[in-house]
Amino acid sequence: MNSSDNDYLFKLRHSAAHVMAQAVQELFPGTKITIGPPIEDGFYYDFDSPHRFVPDDLAKIEKRMRKIVSGNHSFVASDHEIDEARDFWGKRGEKYKVEMIDELNEPTVSYYTSGGFVDLCKGPHVASTKEIVHFRLLKMAGAYWRGDEKREQLQRIYGTVFPTQKELEDHLHRLEEAKKRDHRELGARLKLFSIQHEEAGSGFIYWLPKGTVVRRIIEDYLKNYLVSKGYGFVSTPHVARADLWRTSGHLDYYRENMYPIMQLENQEFILKPMNCPGHILIYKNDLHSYRDLPIRMAEFGTVYRYERSGVLHGLFRVRGFTQDDAHIFCTPDQLEDEVVETLRIIVEVLSAFGFKDYEIKLSTRPEKYSGTLEGWAHAEEALKKALVKTELAYSIDPGEGVFYGPKIDLKIKDSLGRAWQCSTVQVDFNNPERFHITYRDENGGESQVFMIHRALLGSLERFFGVLIEHYAGAFPFWLAPVQAVVLPVSEKFHEYAENVQRCLQQSGFRVEADYSASKVGAKVREATMQKIPFLLVVGGREMESRTVSVRTREGKDLGVVPLDELSEKLEIGN
Amino acid sequence: MNSSDNDYLFKLRHSAAHVMAQAVQELFPGTKITIGPPIEDGFYYDFDSPHRFVPDDLAKIEKRMRKIVSGNHSFVASDHEIDEARDFWGKRGEKYKVEMIDELNEPTVSYYTSGGFVDLCKGPHVASTKEIVHFRLLKMAGAYWRGDEKREQLQRIYGTVFPTQKELEDHLHRLEEAKKRDHRELGARLKLFSIQHEEAGSGFIYWLPKGTVVRRIIEDYLKNYLVSKGYGFVSTPHVARADLWRTSGHLDYYRENMYPIMQLENQEFILKPMNCPGHILIYKNDLHSYRDLPIRMAEFGTVYRYERSGVLHGLFRVRGFTQDDAHIFCTPDQLEDEVVETLRIIVEVLSAFGFKDYEIKLSTRPEKYSGTLEGWAHAEEALKKALVKTELAYSIDPGEGVFYGPKIDLKIKDSLGRAWQCSTVQVDFNNPERFHITYRDENGGESQVFMIHRALLGSLERFFGVLIEHYAGAFPFWLAPVQAVVLPVSEKFHEYAENVQRCLQQSGFRVEADYSASKVGAKVREATMQKIPFLLVVGGREMESRTVSVRTREGKDLGVVPLDELSEKLEIGN
Repeated sequence: MNSSDNDYLFKLRHSAAHVMAQAVQELFPGTKITIGPPIEDGFYYDFDSPHRFVPDDLAKIEKRMRKIVSGNHSFVASDHEIDEARDFWGKRGEKYKVEMIDELNEPTVSYYTSGGFVDLCKGPHVASTKEIVHFRLLKMAGAYWRGDEKREQLQRIYGTVFPTQKELEDHLHRLEEAKKRDHRELGARLKLFSIQHEEAGSGFIYWLPKGTVVRRIIEDYLKNYLVSKGYGFVSTPHVARADLWRTSGHLDYYRENMYPIMQLENQEFILKPMNCPGHILIYKNDLHSYRDLPIRMAEFGTVYRYERSGVLHGLFRVRGFTQDDAHIFCTPDQLEDEVVETLRIIVEVLSAFGFKDYEIKLSTRPEKYSGTLEGWAHAEEALKKALVKTELAYSIDPGEGVFYGPKIDLKIKDSLGRAWQCSTVQVDFNNPERFHITYRDENGGESQVFMIHRALLGSLERFFGVLIEHYAGAFPFWLAPVQAVVLPVSEKFHEYAENVQRCLQQSGFRVEADYSASKVGAKVREATMQKIPFLLVVGGREMESRTVSVRTREGKDLGVVPLDELSEKLEIGN
Repeated sequence: MNSSDNDYLFKLRHSAAHVMAQAVQELFPGTKITIGPPIEDGFYYDFDSPHRFVPDDLAKIEKRMRKIVSGNHSFVASDHEIDEARDFWGKRGEKYKVEMIDELNEPTVSYYTSGGFVDLCKGPHVASTKEIVHFRLLKMAGAYWRGDEKREQLQRIYGTVFPTQKELEDHLHRLEEAKKRDHRELGARLKLFSIQHEEAGSGFIYWLPKGTVVRRIIEDYLKNYLVSKGYGFVSTPHVARADLWRTSGHLDYYRENMYPIMQLENQEFILKPMNCPGHILIYKNDLHSYRDLPIRMAEFGTVYRYERSGVLHGLFRVRGFTQDDAHIFCTPDQLEDEVVETLRIIVEVLSAFGFKDYEIKLSTRPEKYSGTLEGWAHAEEALKKALVKTELAYSIDPGEGVFYGPKIDLKIKDSLGRAWQCSTVQVDFNNPERFHITYRDENGGESQVFMIHRALLGSLERFFGVLIEHYAGAFPFWLAPVQAVVLPVSEKFHEYAENVQRCLQQSGFRVEADYSASKVGAKVREATMQKIPFLLVVGGREMESRTVSVRTREGKDLGVVPLDELSEKLEIGN
């Protein structure tokens, strides 16, 4: 919501939120209004209402909104003395508005009035309600006043509005598509993962056998690829002394995201929120000369970060996740080459998973920073040169670097055009200083090492969620937990089906078979629902000729294939 | 110490402990005696002495012991009234003996006297000190009275004694060998793992790049093998709600081994000490029919168990470790077959790692147990039949089963003949009851599932320690973190060396090269120290003929091998 096009969208959505609030107050007397901002994809308003909203209410409210907007009311601004305002809203029983006025602590406040509805509001708005035509109310959700679970529980209604019907319909179509692809629903239906909210707690992921297959494929692919690129993998414990996090500064600056301290005997321990200090301890386990550098240290490292239960969301927002993390320890001279190589690796890895559209941002020195001006200049220059050398389009976010160093962030675009924060390359001046990590330089002196943090996929959990939604669960052949399923048309062909299954398994494929009593049509439907790339139907004709009838999950008939050509066919056919 | 041969060893070692105590008291006046038992490999005595023992003291004490035993003193038993005994030991200032007498709470106590030395002791002893000939004092260590760190700190002296000089020398040789193979020292020298005692806390393992290579090879081997045996892998979080451990009973019966509870918002969380409840939640994620069973669920599952800092020991005793864990959910009828298959898998897996000697024990129903008598009988019968069917020799430990079910434990014998607890197969009646895990049986009813816990290697950390000591760090080719190292005789051959390295890496071997300025002799020594299976020396002759000179870490010369035959040679030569 920051381009000039978006300015109009902002006004339109903000105005629609007012009209929705008006409709709600007219339909459900006693409803108090709180706040109703425009957001990325539409708008919402939070209500404190004696009425418990049900899905059917959405249509009623929409209808009332259409009636209101047809009145062609102007949005009129007015300023009011603070005491008068307090009195005005107090008399209306709008306690949330009074609270906001009290907190504003200004001599005057502004209202916007439209068609008899008035709201405490800074604007801006569209000229008239008649511009609010192409809108739709979408859903309801619970919310807390001020987002604070200790305050009043409110009811939120979401809607969206666009300047044209076409834009609205496109958006609704995308929402529909996104809903079909919701990784939480697909994750359950395809038996990829589960969250045991009640028994084990929200925010912790149980990878089911099929999900674990995908995870291991991802890990193996990355491991083999990175080893070929000169990385060494390590494995560090999830628990460490709290003192380690005092040295790193996390207990001072990151405490609210960390888990509680655990006391064992006379020492304090804590779950790791990051992998860096562990990798630094491994670096420090040896003395290093400039000849040993760069050292590229990778880990599928699980980290634990406290998130409020209210914000947890499937695989996207969790309380423990595994990063495909790495740290590169190098000399200042090696920095640029290492970033170039890292960017090349990112592009190659993401494209292997089917992501070829990116948004790249370079974030530079913020006002508060650790390290030296000289170091920052060198690092920013190296990051820029690396982006130019790899011919990657990027924009600069001035001053948006982390306090410890400049960084490059990459968002991938999925099949619905949604952007997901994914890879990151960050220079770190803070940890090398705090942990005194050095190397013996060419002159025999002790120099501070340059340290790069980088993640390709970010969080394995989150990336898995993105993958599920990107492919709507229909993973490409190499990632599919089950690559083919053998479907005997009746029990007579179970033995032959087992034969086919074993034969493919021995060639290294992941193959299941459906020996249930269902009809073959039902088996095909089930396998298609499970998004298995290849369906191998076997009946009398196939058994006799030692063949299978191959179909794809998209319903394409690949014909009858001899058993001894099947492996090749599957490899090519995908 | 429980066979009849061992009865004599018990008496001999117990008698040697008395003689050692006598020697110490004669040499270091003011030393108080506490306890001095015979143990697995010898004996010790714990002293409270104003003298701080140093290694040189051992020879002095040994010398005095030789003088004492040459006196040919008999060991004479005598009984004493409790009051007289309290008085006797009190007057001698032996407060520990007084404390023991007070705790005994019996009318009389017995002493053993030999050559003027008297100890509170039940015996038995050898007839005369002259039998104590082939002994040696070994080392000193700190200890606490009653093993309680809040009580007095004592000094322990270890020794050993055998009936013959040959047995003593064999034992000392084994100790020497074991010291050379100490996994803590080799782990540091070969850069396999490290423990960051000071910075991160004892008991947590940092797997260095080379150790992580071995770990991943072990995991990949197990994963591929088990998948071919019908196992599905899962991945469960390390943290769960404390309530889960209330349901499982761990918080009631296993609390002292668990980590402290962590409070997040209004829920309690805790690190998992076992993987079972997580696997059970995954089982419960679906409804199951008898047709789906058995379900074999595996995980490299990390567990956290509190151990006192005093007992932590390298990779053998840690505070967090990863089990190669699995649970099999099956019907009562499937139990025997599943145990048979599990035992076959154990034998095959252990033999792949070079362990072919086992001790197997079947432990049966203890006095306190959960489940039904009928269930126990069925399970014990199934375990027995499975042992018979797989032709594995075993002994029975009556009443030594866990409260939740009977079990089979397997110890492996390493290259020094030492036994290590490793695989386990356990039936569990407790968890299925507590979590109500069932399946729909053939009659459409709801039956309680049979659950088998099993681990092949046990703890990956501990098994890695055993592997290091078993092979003295010289891992077999398939497990070696570095399989070959290219050693150019001078800088002129670096390019050719790189060529050789790349060529082998492309064939999938793990190959390093030594481009340091060292002489080739030094490079060979270093590579041999690092226990790299193959040393590939390249100089002028080799470069010209596109060959390498191959040596093994054992110093065997395999001659000059053409580059294009090298891969094959390494595969065969190992």
